[in-house]
Amino acid sequence: MIKAVLSVLLVLVAVSSTFGKYAPKAGKRVPQTMSRGWGDQLIWAQTYEEALYWSRSRNKPLMVIFHLEDCPHSQSLKKVFSEDNEIQRSLDEDFITLNLVYETTDKHLSPDGQYVPRIIFVDPTMTVRADITGRYANRMYAYEPSDLKLLKSNMQKAKKLLKSEL
Amino acid sequence: MIKAVLSVLLVLVAVSSTFGKYAPKAGKRVPQTMSRGWGDQLIWAQTYEEALYWSRSRNKPLMVIFHLEDCPHSQSLKKVFSEDNEIQRSLDEDFITLNLVYETTDKHLSPDGQYVPRIIFVDPTMTVRADITGRYANRMYAYEPSDLKLLKSNMQKAKKLLKSEL
Repeated sequence: MIKAVLSVLLVLVAVSSTFGKYAPKAGKRVPQTMSRGWGDQLIWAQTYEEALYWSRSRNKPLMVIFHLEDCPHSQSLKKVFSEDNEIQRSLDEDFITLNLVYETTDKHLSPDGQYVPRIIFVDPTMTVRADITGRYANRMYAYEPSDLKLLKSNMQKAKKLLKSEL
Repeated sequence: MIKAVLSVLLVLVAVSSTFGKYAPKAGKRVPQTMSRGWGDQLIWAQTYEEALYWSRSRNKPLMVIFHLEDCPHSQSLKKVFSEDNEIQRSLDEDFITLNLVYETTDKHLSPDGQYVPRIIFVDPTMTVRADITGRYANRMYAYEPSDLKLLKSNMQKAKKLLKSEL
């Protein structure tokens, strides 16, 4: 009898913990991640201001990725980017990372226009590294999945920090 | 024999899919969520600019939560907030939501100073609703776990949109 009561209680607890929580009418959603798929193991800044703060205080270069969730070019770059352990390790250890699906008001982050995917490096001195570019003359900060080697060498460039004039 | 080879292959695939991915030296991290625990089923804006855009284009009021992950007052409010289905449903259906751990440069979002936890409503006309306050005279936008009823009535106030003067 006690066993039966315990079983019922257990079921009730299980049911309430599953069905008690709010779920949208259209069905349960997968919680959004800060990484948005660009590297679940990385620690992402949420805003550009926050990213600049961390870049300055930890003296690490910042990588800003502009992308859109339903853009196929963003998706294909994201796939190889997130699966490349060399990139992920380097970002985790030596960079501050930020990915944005909405443009900031800072025009320095769009030296040749607003497009996605676009990767911009920023030095801890808060200088946008407009000199670190990809291989496309008309979209200088765009990368394709086949450009990972160039991206890695650009990350090396970004790690050579500019000297502060102070 | 074929079975044995298949088994070995399966094990290899399993091992490589688990161990092949980048993991930090200190151990695997739980991926950060956009909700940071304030409601995994909600769709969160990432930045204030993005949140204002959605608020205007969908004509829904915006709730901005300022908090810190290691602040016990933020944590205790977050717990009751995220478990309250009435709040979660109303936010999901009628609000744009944003939670921030880093202050913005917009001083309108800190009418009486920068402290956490702090909840500020913004009308789709982009007017910060400084008139919607909690019960503490020295920290007008702070809420404690026992203030959920007041918070709900404040959400009702925020839903009564200001008339645009245009």
